[in-house]
Amino acid sequence: MTTWVEGARDSGYDVTHLPYGVFSHNGDEPRVGARIGDFVVDLAPIAAAEMRREGHVLESATLNAFMALGRPAWRTVRSWLVATLTDEAAKPDLEPFLFPLADVRMHMPFEVADYVDFYCSLDHASNVGKMFRPDAEPLLPNWRHLPVGYHGRAGTVVPTGTDVRRPCGQRKAPQDAAPTFGPSQRLDIEAELGFVVGTPSRMGTPVSIDDFAEHVFGVVLLNDWSARDIQAWEYVPLGPFLGKSFATSISAWVTPLDALEAARVPLPRQDPTPLDYLRGTDDAGLDIDYEVQWNGTVVARPPYRSMYWSPAQMLAHMTVNGASLRTGDLFGSGTISGPEKEQRGSFLELSWSGQEPITLADGSRRTFLEDGDEIVLTATAPGTSGAPITLGEVAGRILPAG
Amino acid sequence: MTTWVEGARDSGYDVTHLPYGVFSHNGDEPRVGARIGDFVVDLAPIAAAEMRREGHVLESATLNAFMALGRPAWRTVRSWLVATLTDEAAKPDLEPFLFPLADVRMHMPFEVADYVDFYCSLDHASNVGKMFRPDAEPLLPNWRHLPVGYHGRAGTVVPTGTDVRRPCGQRKAPQDAAPTFGPSQRLDIEAELGFVVGTPSRMGTPVSIDDFAEHVFGVVLLNDWSARDIQAWEYVPLGPFLGKSFATSISAWVTPLDALEAARVPLPRQDPTPLDYLRGTDDAGLDIDYEVQWNGTVVARPPYRSMYWSPAQMLAHMTVNGASLRTGDLFGSGTISGPEKEQRGSFLELSWSGQEPITLADGSRRTFLEDGDEIVLTATAPGTSGAPITLGEVAGRILPAG
Repeated sequence: MTTWVEGARDSGYDVTHLPYGVFSHNGDEPRVGARIGDFVVDLAPIAAAEMRREGHVLESATLNAFMALGRPAWRTVRSWLVATLTDEAAKPDLEPFLFPLADVRMHMPFEVADYVDFYCSLDHASNVGKMFRPDAEPLLPNWRHLPVGYHGRAGTVVPTGTDVRRPCGQRKAPQDAAPTFGPSQRLDIEAELGFVVGTPSRMGTPVSIDDFAEHVFGVVLLNDWSARDIQAWEYVPLGPFLGKSFATSISAWVTPLDALEAARVPLPRQDPTPLDYLRGTDDAGLDIDYEVQWNGTVVARPPYRSMYWSPAQMLAHMTVNGASLRTGDLFGSGTISGPEKEQRGSFLELSWSGQEPITLADGSRRTFLEDGDEIVLTATAPGTSGAPITLGEVAGRILPAG
Repeated sequence: MTTWVEGARDSGYDVTHLPYGVFSHNGDEPRVGARIGDFVVDLAPIAAAEMRREGHVLESATLNAFMALGRPAWRTVRSWLVATLTDEAAKPDLEPFLFPLADVRMHMPFEVADYVDFYCSLDHASNVGKMFRPDAEPLLPNWRHLPVGYHGRAGTVVPTGTDVRRPCGQRKAPQDAAPTFGPSQRLDIEAELGFVVGTPSRMGTPVSIDDFAEHVFGVVLLNDWSARDIQAWEYVPLGPFLGKSFATSISAWVTPLDALEAARVPLPRQDPTPLDYLRGTDDAGLDIDYEVQWNGTVVARPPYRSMYWSPAQMLAHMTVNGASLRTGDLFGSGTISGPEKEQRGSFLELSWSGQEPITLADGSRRTFLEDGDEIVLTATAPGTSGAPITLGEVAGRILPAG
């Protein structure tokens, strides 16, 4: 299965990947495209001609209408796209609809309905527990029984490349008599994987763990920016709020679930055995390797395969109370941290709460983010052709507090 | 200022109130209406003729487009509506557009963007603290410094009259060795007031406490259904999730902020003095009296005027980190509980964690909700004419677990 698109092979964006995004060209209306190599395929005009049902939803400024059609339609479009991009005879017709990435502007790929963030890494939860509760068991009693999660702010999820202004808020260190107000001094990242819901569900009806692939359209890289000082003061008893809600960044490209078939790996052993609704045949982890770049220096390599709770377990848990899904729902895995120090997906852990600075390539030292710093998360996974696929990166730069 | 609409005076829905909602008649498309007495005024056709700019947004199936126009437009429509409904000469033109409430179906009044729930009642927070942490200070250290809040699930906010299915989930009592799965045995309500955002704000720019009325369109009654057993097991360290996300009910009628001018009252004294961003000239409490009906028996009368944190303080806090507002954002006050036992707005408090059953008019006793139970929240506030206004009620019935 070889594509005629020049440079696509071994680019991470071969015909086995084909992530979707929303782009505009020369100030045109934003519309749906797929990435192949360093090109965007403008899907709207060609799909409209080929596929009446699926085609019109690709003329939209978001992926939502396409995602709402459900898995059979996702597969129809993907199969057609693969067939067309590997058929030399289709090249003359399609070539006018290929735009070099350098000539397009990428937009937010979908409209976020509800945003939920989980806490699925055993190593991350243990590290945080050790730092915040040094005299107690690092893991809280519920952690091994359910994927702990909470709702975040959907309205401040932004696409890669969006600058992030340093948030202000209340902070109070244990030794302070009263809280003070000002810019966060402990601004952090969380390297995560985000799952995007396509097919909605009915209120009152849980989604079975085995129906994961019927509902989830694909994945994005996600950076859950976190102001640790604001979070530490506000979070009891109702959880994180302003320490997180100022911004969450996602990649511009949504990798379809089908492109991750070769990345499926068994979960780490779960002990105790989870309750029935969290056990299924469709359950699996994902073998995705992350890199965290801080002003160009790779400071961590978190491995997604080390995550304790699976994506399907998160989905089953999130809906077991009858909460409905909507097209555009986004749920994040929580910080990806592996067992080794260099596998930690947050600066809170990498700097051990600021006690162990990190040295960047230019010799500068960091604990938390400084104004002007740029963070880029990248990730690769095994592709179905044997060559790895490259997930869409997520980048963001810190602006000074306003 | 007297309206020509029969029965409107002293109905709680006089011309000084005029809440907005979305209705349909005879299976027509849902559209925006205003309530006067026991009638709905179909605003779309008449406003389209009178007000070109504001009129077309009233043909919509949600209030969002109208709310997005901002306060000057809200005032234009309201002034025109008051003038028309008090002008005998307008009666023949308008009468064909008045529908008896009994002949229309009410819908969800607006599309919820983000939903945030606060925890603003000192008495509620103290009661919960006493029950859950009997050996410690009832209030956590941050409570008097900031309005504690968290994000809830926007996709499961439903209008009054929607049945609520009893949620299933994990529960673990302290004496249990491991969690079990099943229907919630401690299903509860929270009587709240909800604030609906009209005018959006820019990401990175906090909303000043004095700009509350520029951004908030109006209020709804809100019932934050809560499964206490699910919540108690899941909520550390990231806050409530499935214990709340199965359903949140709101009234069909949105009372404009201008209709609550006579209900503004000073806040209870705040000690310590809040930080600067939480202090403003536009700050005030609201004098709203609630009734909680359990299968027709009034079991509580929570007073909104006892709330510690003001609506404007909630808004200023929610955005102080630069989080943006969107049209349709909804934020709830948290349970409204006064200092007296019969003023408590949750059954957790009324039954003191199930230890003190409540007797209903039919002689039956309750601690938490049973299948088939119906809860109705109603509320009244001083109106600008001297007569009280009646806020739109929120009702819901419990269906057995699926």
